[in-house]
Amino acid sequence: MSAQPTEVSRWKCTVAYDGSALAGWQIQPNAETVQSVIEARLAAVFKTPVDITGSGRTDSGVHARGQVFHFDAQWSHDPAKLLTAMRIGLPPTIQILTAKKVPATFHARFSAKGKIYHYDICHGAFADPFTQAYTWSMARTLDIEAMRAAAKLLVGTHDFRAFTAMPGSGVEKEDTVRTVKRLDITGRGTRLRIAAEGNGFLYKMVRSLTGALVDVGAGRLKPDDMTEILASQVRTQRVFTAPPQGLCLVKVFY
Amino acid sequence: MSAQPTEVSRWKCTVAYDGSALAGWQIQPNAETVQSVIEARLAAVFKTPVDITGSGRTDSGVHARGQVFHFDAQWSHDPAKLLTAMRIGLPPTIQILTAKKVPATFHARFSAKGKIYHYDICHGAFADPFTQAYTWSMARTLDIEAMRAAAKLLVGTHDFRAFTAMPGSGVEKEDTVRTVKRLDITGRGTRLRIAAEGNGFLYKMVRSLTGALVDVGAGRLKPDDMTEILASQVRTQRVFTAPPQGLCLVKVFY
Repeated sequence: MSAQPTEVSRWKCTVAYDGSALAGWQIQPNAETVQSVIEARLAAVFKTPVDITGSGRTDSGVHARGQVFHFDAQWSHDPAKLLTAMRIGLPPTIQILTAKKVPATFHARFSAKGKIYHYDICHGAFADPFTQAYTWSMARTLDIEAMRAAAKLLVGTHDFRAFTAMPGSGVEKEDTVRTVKRLDITGRGTRLRIAAEGNGFLYKMVRSLTGALVDVGAGRLKPDDMTEILASQVRTQRVFTAPPQGLCLVKVFY
Repeated sequence: MSAQPTEVSRWKCTVAYDGSALAGWQIQPNAETVQSVIEARLAAVFKTPVDITGSGRTDSGVHARGQVFHFDAQWSHDPAKLLTAMRIGLPPTIQILTAKKVPATFHARFSAKGKIYHYDICHGAFADPFTQAYTWSMARTLDIEAMRAAAKLLVGTHDFRAFTAMPGSGVEKEDTVRTVKRLDITGRGTRLRIAAEGNGFLYKMVRSLTGALVDVGAGRLKPDDMTEILASQVRTQRVFTAPPQGLCLVKVFY
């Protein structure tokens, strides 16, 4: 039976991935990225090249439990069957969780209203073999109360230029004002999680905030330094970028 | 300050490891094994080769949260400092948890009175990217009650020859009678765990028991087939060996 011609629809998908062995989200030559793996799968499903657009890029080694992307394609079969078709043949480290038809006005990046990231830390202990790939482990015990005091000063609407990666040519012109709604630090024993929610985050911003908070927890920075660093609007080596493996994009709000 | 000569002591250690990228416990040429990594570290700590003896071997890809080994060495410093010295420089996938001096009569293998293994399964679902390295994942939903009925028939003292790996030259002569004290199946949603406790397990026995139980859960075998297979005392292709990544050596009793 030949399917009757169908219109192009826009699809919204959520995807979880273990970024340990992936070169980040964005497609690039000679490297396995989340985008390249998913686009290869979609090309097989739709028998034509399909471009996907993510809510944003995640860096090499960063994980996601709820990354969102969209694409446009013709699917003449039962909509409920697209998810299974997409999942088959993906590596076990990349899992598409949902796929649904959305209006053509939906855009994974431009429609996003906010994001939640988690950054997981193991402190005052040697790394646990089973979670070390998703955790920044350090021997030193962190002062959580000092970190919370510092986090309070970072919450709100600020120019976060001092907490994005060292400026390349582009960042000078970019609007670097963002609103951080929550920067909650929760811990139990040697485990600690920084939950960051905001309307958007600059390049390496969550990892830079985490690096600064950990330096406060370790006594290398004082909570009040956060205000001073924010006001400086210059990224210096004073702010350390936390390693990628502790970071996970948990949710994108629309 | 030169340390005064100390006597050789026996040390008992527990170790956790993510076996995903390791070629099992036992030392072998041209492969990274748990034993080879730890012995290399001990040679650096003690500045002389040190042989370690494990409670038993784990296969390539199998994990451990509480593997036990012993070794004999001269340690002239604070006993509490040996653990830290051993830990430094180990890869993040191998973590020594405890190290304590024991009487020379202690033997990691011969003194062991029992072991607990866990085998983790994800059923009726696609694999989760963050736990797939520690789980056997299958699309089919398993009948847990049928698996429990089958497990009941396997608990107790039996000749488990039909549930060990295909006999090589040695196994013919080996005593294959073992006592399985517990074979508990617990589940929540798509997750399922088989907890096996016994006085000892034959080569690939837990993975063979798991393979048979999963075949019961999937309707390919009946619970009563367990009795028949046990009685046959012959390993055939009827019993499937579950893949290594779901298995974890949790505890060794002394």
